[in-house]
Amino acid sequence: MTSNQNTLLIACEDAKGLVHKITDVIYQFDLNIVLNREFVEHESKHFFMRTVVEGDFDQSRLVDELKKKLPANSNIRLTSPRNKNIVVMATKEHHVLGDLLIRNEFDENRANIQAVVSNHDTLRPFVERFDIPFHLVPHQDKTRKEHEQEVLEVLENYDPDYIFLAKYMRILSPDFVEQYAHKLINIHHSFLPAFIGARPYHQAFERGVKIIGATAHYVTDDLDEGPIIYQSTTPVDHRYDADQMAQAGREIESKVMAEAAKLVLDDKVFIYGNKTVILD
Amino acid sequence: MTSNQNTLLIACEDAKGLVHKITDVIYQFDLNIVLNREFVEHESKHFFMRTVVEGDFDQSRLVDELKKKLPANSNIRLTSPRNKNIVVMATKEHHVLGDLLIRNEFDENRANIQAVVSNHDTLRPFVERFDIPFHLVPHQDKTRKEHEQEVLEVLENYDPDYIFLAKYMRILSPDFVEQYAHKLINIHHSFLPAFIGARPYHQAFERGVKIIGATAHYVTDDLDEGPIIYQSTTPVDHRYDADQMAQAGREIESKVMAEAAKLVLDDKVFIYGNKTVILD
Amino acid sequence: MTSNQNTLLIACEDAKGLVHKITDVIYQFDLNIVLNREFVEHESKHFFMRTVVEGDFDQSRLVDELKKKLPANSNIRLTSPRNKNIVVMATKEHHVLGDLLIRNEFDENRANIQAVVSNHDTLRPFVERFDIPFHLVPHQDKTRKEHEQEVLEVLENYDPDYIFLAKYMRILSPDFVEQYAHKLINIHHSFLPAFIGARPYHQAFERGVKIIGATAHYVTDDLDEGPIIYQSTTPVDHRYDADQMAQAGREIESKVMAEAAKLVLDDKVFIYGNKTVILD
Amino acid sequence: MTSNQNTLLIACEDAKGLVHKITDVIYQFDLNIVLNREFVEHESKHFFMRTVVEGDFDQSRLVDELKKKLPANSNIRLTSPRNKNIVVMATKEHHVLGDLLIRNEFDENRANIQAVVSNHDTLRPFVERFDIPFHLVPHQDKTRKEHEQEVLEVLENYDPDYIFLAKYMRILSPDFVEQYAHKLINIHHSFLPAFIGARPYHQAFERGVKIIGATAHYVTDDLDEGPIIYQSTTPVDHRYDADQMAQAGREIESKVMAEAAKLVLDDKVFIYGNKTVILD
Repeated sequence: MTSNQNTLLIACEDAKGLVHKITDVIYQFDLNIVLNREFVEHESKHFFMRTVVEGDFDQSRLVDELKKKLPANSNIRLTSPRNKNIVVMATKEHHVLGDLLIRNEFDENRANIQAVVSNHDTLRPFVERFDIPFHLVPHQDKTRKEHEQEVLEVLENYDPDYIFLAKYMRILSPDFVEQYAHKLINIHHSFLPAFIGARPYHQAFERGVKIIGATAHYVTDDLDEGPIIYQSTTPVDHRYDADQMAQAGREIESKVMAEAAKLVLDDKVFIYGNKTVILD
Repeated sequence: MTSNQNTLLIACEDAKGLVHKITDVIYQFDLNIVLNREFVEHESKHFFMRTVVEGDFDQSRLVDELKKKLPANSNIRLTSPRNKNIVVMATKEHHVLGDLLIRNEFDENRANIQAVVSNHDTLRPFVERFDIPFHLVPHQDKTRKEHEQEVLEVLENYDPDYIFLAKYMRILSPDFVEQYAHKLINIHHSFLPAFIGARPYHQAFERGVKIIGATAHYVTDDLDEGPIIYQSTTPVDHRYDADQMAQAGREIESKVMAEAAKLVLDDKVFIYGNKTVILD
Repeated sequence: MTSNQNTLLIACEDAKGLVHKITDVIYQFDLNIVLNREFVEHESKHFFMRTVVEGDFDQSRLVDELKKKLPANSNIRLTSPRNKNIVVMATKEHHVLGDLLIRNEFDENRANIQAVVSNHDTLRPFVERFDIPFHLVPHQDKTRKEHEQEVLEVLENYDPDYIFLAKYMRILSPDFVEQYAHKLINIHHSFLPAFIGARPYHQAFERGVKIIGATAHYVTDDLDEGPIIYQSTTPVDHRYDADQMAQAGREIESKVMAEAAKLVLDDKVFIYGNKTVILD
Repeated sequence: MTSNQNTLLIACEDAKGLVHKITDVIYQFDLNIVLNREFVEHESKHFFMRTVVEGDFDQSRLVDELKKKLPANSNIRLTSPRNKNIVVMATKEHHVLGDLLIRNEFDENRANIQAVVSNHDTLRPFVERFDIPFHLVPHQDKTRKEHEQEVLEVLENYDPDYIFLAKYMRILSPDFVEQYAHKLINIHHSFLPAFIGARPYHQAFERGVKIIGATAHYVTDDLDEGPIIYQSTTPVDHRYDADQMAQAGREIESKVMAEAAKLVLDDKVFIYGNKTVILD
């Protein structure tokens, strides 16, 4: 993405001539289409299109023109290539966080980690190596509501585009989720829907599976049921006990979160019901 | 495996000096160890060893000598490189069966498919292309017990070492399973324990997963809970509807069954509780 | 692809407004765009677009209209969902051929294998199991030119859309290649450009690599240098000698050829210089 | 590995009864065998065995006893579970180094990164975040010999068990390599033997490959020809230019180096000619 490239994401009910109508507007604004991908979900007849355009133009006017041409409830996003702001929430495990911090240090994603928030102080020295603010918000002796209220106060100082839950081991309440709807991305330590719930590596060991995996997903009110962004698996065998499975799992967790972060930060992901459509 | 190589599989409770005792016997019989692999499950202190030996010797005498030296309930298997006999059970889908038939035609596994048994006549013309007997045992208007009784009668003509369930879409009763204990190998169309039960590809589509997979496992009384031999996954995305997921799944099902068949037919698999230990 | 869906493939030099111009024509013909994907190669400024359209229309008139609107040397392909005709050429190895024959038997690709041509008689009984004509064209005591002339005479009876070289172990002359330009697809038994030339598995064994692989590519005059369609690798280790590497390689060869066949037969592949652009 | 576990690695010419002789000695020392794996390279008749033993014993006496029983030129290594010392050499790229530093920070490998040596100052601030000494040894205006002499002087302060070349972009002279024979591990940015030499990602882009990869290998005098420890590949497509291939390559480079480091640090790798035998 060079500096005068913008990404246009459109989702709406399908109709004949949508691509034509949209590209007509783009043509009127004298923009070049660098990349275009379109998909129609054929059960529900829903239309998705992602277009990278090149050129200088008035962004709000383009969106207005599109709105006139498209069905009433169309979802139109136009994103410029500015860095997105991220807050990472973690508990005690460093591996997913560490991978994100290194990428941040060298500007590998179009993103800027503003802060790390944790319910434990374990990761403070590590985070501070990177000169990133670390906020401890302990949960002991607090109700979930109280604790979340304190977290929300910290977050308000940052107004993040996305919150990455990098092994944040607390369940978020519907109220919290609602405040950051479509902005919360979690890494789950199993290839969902296998091993829903706690201690998936112990479950995996007990079951004697030959693969383990990880799932990055948007957080919704239904625990472990949010729209899946990316998943991957890795082979294991009888030599792995539950701890060794967890260790092998960490590698795949970091990788899956990194892939999901890339897709989200590059504006390639549409949420549609409890699923995602990813156009790259 | 050349003709004077044999495989020795030993499983017993762990004790100091087991490898030494076993190799002592092998040495006395003047055999060369071509390959040896040993594993101790450290929670339950159970010992597993697979040894490929080279040389001519009296097989039953070797086993007797080992029995004298090893703990009381040791499980000792000595397998010679003869072809194993296989019966394949299928319903209407050809892909896993087809892969097995081609390998059989060109002697790729150390195995000999004796017959195919099915509850539908769909696959008869295909199977008969390969000059393999095809037995139709319809299940309509029969109790499960009656139907299985008829299948058992067919199987008795063959006395197979293994029965491969290549998309056999009927549940087997505990009585049937018991008669062929440790000989029934099934391919399940999901990466267990995800999507237990029927129509896993529809479940996968509904959930919006980004991977699908397959699992080969021994059949036990607990449906979808037998010891897992091999699993693998493959990526999918929003463009796949349930049918297309099923189609992509067929590729991985064939591959997973082929890998599991190879492991079993090469005598590399130990069953231990509801898990497998695989030494290769 | 349902019966009134057609695929439109356009490649030309890039210019502003191309997507708009093309979709304008599509809109005039009252067609629905089911799927659209566009890519601009940004070094050479070359434009590629693949569009699946739904509806009834006069195909040659659509192409004519597009020609009027697009740059002079545009390459426009409009393919209807009819089955394509395939001839397979093989030598002695059955595995890639077998996989193609099974898919053909059950109509898994949109293709119809018309015949198998071989320079050895080895595979005749296998091919004839599937009621496919088998043509032996021995190469002994003939010049390359003479032998190829005989093969060409056989091929003329079929007029295939594609010729799949399923482990055909003879080099084709530029004259032969030219006659079937862009229609010859070969499976090469290594992850090119590694192990160019003969006996790649022996080379792999000597080098001690930890992966082996396969490459499906269009055949051009430069041996092993044609546009690559698909590649994949699989892990090996010290236990594999050259023969066992070849055996493991066969699995990946079949898989890679199957994937490449699917891409080609679904009209997803553009050839561009010595590379491919694949829009799916 | 618990604290009273040691790993025994034996390589020698094959002979009948070797496993028996070795386990006899182990039994005499009253040690328990936790894990044992043996392999005979059947072309050259060379024997390899890796044994993890548990118990307290006189290490040099055990090795002496083994020497008495084994063929004359046997290679016997007995490693205790102490942390190994590592020096990392890098140039300007951070990704492989960053991955190693994070693992070091949290003690994930049994290793201790003592220092980073570089011919550029680029990575100093990053390395110093981790409180690891950073040594700049510029190569400008020096002969290769002079530069290497300075590097060797730095290394002498550390006496590392292994030197990891984490994208160190200078060729090492035979003299240097000899001083650290079997201790130098390099990550090469291609799936060797493809794309030997400089700028592999540009070569990959020009060739239009559909996979890229990385190779971790011991460094020998023959550039890019040392024994391969680990390799892996990842898919790419027409959308990747050479820079994007390099970016995708970085992910796989870090992963491959991490896997190779684990194998080496866990004492699982035998060097044999220009290959490795890995027993895990």
